[in-house]
Amino acid sequence: MSNNNSFPDEQKKGVYRAIMKRRDIRAQFTDAPVSDKILNNILQAAHHAPSVGFMQPWNFLVIRDQKTKEQVYTGFKKAHEDSAVMFAEEKQDTYRAFKLEGIRESPINLLITCDRQRTGPVVIGRTVQPEMDLFSTVCAVQNLWLAARAEGIGVGWVSIIYEQELQRIFSLPESVRVIAYLCLGHVTHFPQQPELNWKKPVGCHASTLRILFFMKNGEKPCGSRPFTVL
Amino acid sequence: MSNNNSFPDEQKKGVYRAIMKRRDIRAQFTDAPVSDKILNNILQAAHHAPSVGFMQPWNFLVIRDQKTKEQVYTGFKKAHEDSAVMFAEEKQDTYRAFKLEGIRESPINLLITCDRQRTGPVVIGRTVQPEMDLFSTVCAVQNLWLAARAEGIGVGWVSIIYEQELQRIFSLPESVRVIAYLCLGHVTHFPQQPELNWKKPVGCHASTLRILFFMKNGEKPCGSRPFTVL
Repeated sequence: MSNNNSFPDEQKKGVYRAIMKRRDIRAQFTDAPVSDKILNNILQAAHHAPSVGFMQPWNFLVIRDQKTKEQVYTGFKKAHEDSAVMFAEEKQDTYRAFKLEGIRESPINLLITCDRQRTGPVVIGRTVQPEMDLFSTVCAVQNLWLAARAEGIGVGWVSIIYEQELQRIFSLPESVRVIAYLCLGHVTHFPQQPELNWKKPVGCHASTLRILFFMKNGEKPCGSRPFTVL
Repeated sequence: MSNNNSFPDEQKKGVYRAIMKRRDIRAQFTDAPVSDKILNNILQAAHHAPSVGFMQPWNFLVIRDQKTKEQVYTGFKKAHEDSAVMFAEEKQDTYRAFKLEGIRESPINLLITCDRQRTGPVVIGRTVQPEMDLFSTVCAVQNLWLAARAEGIGVGWVSIIYEQELQRIFSLPESVRVIAYLCLGHVTHFPQQPELNWKKPVGCHASTLRILFFMKNGEKPCGSRPFTVL
């Protein structure tokens, strides 16, 4: 199964362990400060993400100021309440009770943005799929999340806040899009299972893995037919 | 620097090695078949990506059929020519000469999609940021890319093709968006440096890492001011 380009077993294990044991962290942050070395490591990991046309369109804003966190938390609360009323009435109270962010209690908040004009209007690979620079920046988020897991640092992605609110708080130029607002810090533990709130996972973590085979028989796959494994 | 939740050094090294040594592969694919075990491993890695509200909105279409690859390649060629004329005239011939995809010569092509209706219209965390399911699927792409690197499998992302063309070829339902079309296979080698075409990397791989500090002094960061390191 292995080849000359594959990693030794223990390194491979690290990669899969980070992938399988990464969690979205909203609580259990500790007061232990994140060292500059670890912060630099995980930002370097983010920075080595693939980027369309080597555009590297990301910026990383490291937020430690409690007043700024409070502003963001106020924005979260508004969006959270706007969100609650979108759910069926009988679910709204449950939704409101969920712990969905760790903005104020995590030592570091991190805003990851995408500067859409970083290398000019025409970029190799972003010609007919103009959203590719946004996707590159999401790859940077995932790199950071996995590196953080290896370092024992919890990361949570706060998506319940209006982008315009973050643009206002951080005075972002118009060409800069918000991709992710993250909460980072040491944690007491990583949950064994993802925290799903009202949706229960089937088996360990994975519900049905949907793989659609499109092989030699020329059969068209159906977009919603689930296959279990290979 | 380490804590109880961090990985042992060799596993950590594996994570950073995958991140730093991952490349976008457009050439040097070999004829060696990708085993079902490896394919399953890297698809499982993709499936363990974070997903908003545990939506797991992705589907994976595994393409081995040469005729289907030819259809996709035809779609690439059209988008590639449409792209060429977007560049300044003196760059167009250079652009046309670049090798930007390995559709026909890679043993496996993989279409990764996002089913926007997977778990109904209202999803926790996708209320005021409706694009979060697309971003979750991008995280799945990056997980797969890193796991593939650990397995010694090259992966290239073909973004020079119209989404509508892929939707037509694969008869995708309207609610299913295309996120990535990938080419996968064993390779003779991984390039030391990213292949940047006309843009040269500064230093190893990283140009300036843009970290904007937003700390206790309350100073507003400027959206384009580059900082080097912490």
